[in-house]
Amino acid sequence: MIVHTETVVFDEPLHLECGRDLQPFEIAYARYGELNAAGDNAILVLHGLTTDQHAAGQSGPEGRPGWWDTVIGPGKAMDTDRWCVICPNALGSYGGSSGPASLDPSTGRPYGMRFPIATIADSVASQARLADHLGIRRFHAITGGCFGGFQALEWMARHGDRLGRAVVITATPRTSAHNLALWAVLRDAIRSDPNWRGGDYYDGPPPDAGLGLTAKFGALFWMNRATYEQKFGLKHLAGKAPAYSFEPEFEAEAFLENVGRNAAGRMDANSLLYLTRAVDYFDMTRGHESLSDVFGDYRSPTLLVSYANDWRYPAEEMAEIADALEAIGAPVRQVALDSPGGHGSFLYDTAGLTPLLGDFLAA
Amino acid sequence: MIVHTETVVFDEPLHLECGRDLQPFEIAYARYGELNAAGDNAILVLHGLTTDQHAAGQSGPEGRPGWWDTVIGPGKAMDTDRWCVICPNALGSYGGSSGPASLDPSTGRPYGMRFPIATIADSVASQARLADHLGIRRFHAITGGCFGGFQALEWMARHGDRLGRAVVITATPRTSAHNLALWAVLRDAIRSDPNWRGGDYYDGPPPDAGLGLTAKFGALFWMNRATYEQKFGLKHLAGKAPAYSFEPEFEAEAFLENVGRNAAGRMDANSLLYLTRAVDYFDMTRGHESLSDVFGDYRSPTLLVSYANDWRYPAEEMAEIADALEAIGAPVRQVALDSPGGHGSFLYDTAGLTPLLGDFLAA
Repeated sequence: MIVHTETVVFDEPLHLECGRDLQPFEIAYARYGELNAAGDNAILVLHGLTTDQHAAGQSGPEGRPGWWDTVIGPGKAMDTDRWCVICPNALGSYGGSSGPASLDPSTGRPYGMRFPIATIADSVASQARLADHLGIRRFHAITGGCFGGFQALEWMARHGDRLGRAVVITATPRTSAHNLALWAVLRDAIRSDPNWRGGDYYDGPPPDAGLGLTAKFGALFWMNRATYEQKFGLKHLAGKAPAYSFEPEFEAEAFLENVGRNAAGRMDANSLLYLTRAVDYFDMTRGHESLSDVFGDYRSPTLLVSYANDWRYPAEEMAEIADALEAIGAPVRQVALDSPGGHGSFLYDTAGLTPLLGDFLAA
Repeated sequence: MIVHTETVVFDEPLHLECGRDLQPFEIAYARYGELNAAGDNAILVLHGLTTDQHAAGQSGPEGRPGWWDTVIGPGKAMDTDRWCVICPNALGSYGGSSGPASLDPSTGRPYGMRFPIATIADSVASQARLADHLGIRRFHAITGGCFGGFQALEWMARHGDRLGRAVVITATPRTSAHNLALWAVLRDAIRSDPNWRGGDYYDGPPPDAGLGLTAKFGALFWMNRATYEQKFGLKHLAGKAPAYSFEPEFEAEAFLENVGRNAAGRMDANSLLYLTRAVDYFDMTRGHESLSDVFGDYRSPTLLVSYANDWRYPAEEMAEIADALEAIGAPVRQVALDSPGGHGSFLYDTAGLTPLLGDFLAA
């Protein structure tokens, strides 16, 4: 599969919800498959907090497979022989779109924490500009999970007429108090690293220890309890008996060490601060009468996918979206998949998701 | 209520599971109520990971109420006019029993990380020595939640003939892989603080930032998701609209800041390393045929209390204990209370627990 990647520089300012303008702003994206002459075979795929535009194929010096490589490709559920998959990097993220690592034109140095807060709606606004630039008036479909799901929901609310259908995975119409708390602690972990230096670490060692701690802590929530039991149980590394020391000796500990190491060098710590803060401000009903009211004139078919035992975004919250869409007459189907993986299943256990997705996209 | 506190120094060594001897060793304890002449009205109360022997009354310069002050006292469920409540500080903890802050007799300086790993069974052995010292052959009852519940279970297994009845709250017969992972991350958070200095911080500033981060992490699990919603929702402090900044502006954030501040000065960071590691090694069935086999000749009545939506120790795991006790003919009753607080309910929402406890103790 040919992977096309590009970064588009927009000179016209992007007006952000916080009141500041981003000018210029850049959006990096990956494209899998070709846009047809009518420009009507594009699928917009929106990535999660800890992933980027490299959704399929391999990328980076290690040839790491894309986060949805099981889903996107020739002959796969999101068939790139038929569809043109566009995956843009979110504003504030670390894949090349404007974010804290970008150069601040007023100083010529990286923004760091002087980058403005870009909300999920701001990312959606940037993506609409990208779609215009690419000549895509209307997407065949839009899809995303978690952070990507929030963006998909904002697309439905703000540009419903530009979407032929939508697949929203493990999402919610507004963040929760528990999410607010989780993100606050993850941000603290990053800022506790002396290398973070108020966010101005781009000319020195990055805060990899804080980033690793954040990734490890996050891993307690992306996978649910039962999955930890199934994968690791109380197994000792190399079959050792209790050593009565603080050295890692359980497989669950080794797994976490690996999670921490993998985060370093792959993610940008400041970006995680910005993206989690964007989620804190995500509340679609703020300033609206009802969630149905928010979805305005969106009437396209929607597939909502939850996972059993998802600690982060339970199916009940997805049901609120289903109800709101039903109330305005938009065709909606809600499915709760029973993957033991919980929240991260849409990334790590896609067997249940892919046939659903394939059928829905082709229908 | 008169609170009697004492620290007993034992000159005979305590042989630990790790193979090392602790000599001398000290056990600090609090006593509420008077031991009767027959010595048969004592109740052994075992504290959790982040609490200590100050279970009732007020203690410390701030006159902080004990963690079970709603439960223990004259006329309360654990009536100190009738019972003599003994609450010993666990080995490795920070309440005055031998732990990492104790002086290492071989160096005259605090042990720090040279303190041996003391398991839950080791704490129980120390408590049996304390009971001997106090002239208590058999306790009227034993009770504890979480870390205290693990100790109660080890008591039942190792000294079943010394217990008239037992109340085990939100516990499990063995730790879980998810627990292992959680504790590993909490320990990392402590060790990430430059003030931790390999555990040798007792002559300098303590690692309060790491300790605070640990306490905040923990708070995401002691309370369940629904409780966060009920207590905080997405409420802004002082009714502010979104500020689009990184300053705390949500009530959930302010709560966590408070949790972090409260941990500093109240807990000892090294102790949390030791106590969580003790839980890592907690597996009652290791080396045994079955859990029934573990409980040997214990036949006293037992009350097992779980909480709905307890992410840490679900009722299913408690049921394994109930089954094992039933199989050996020990009278057992399992109750699942429906407090929205989840795991921490036995500390913070005792309304459902106290009548159960009162009836069971007096029966």
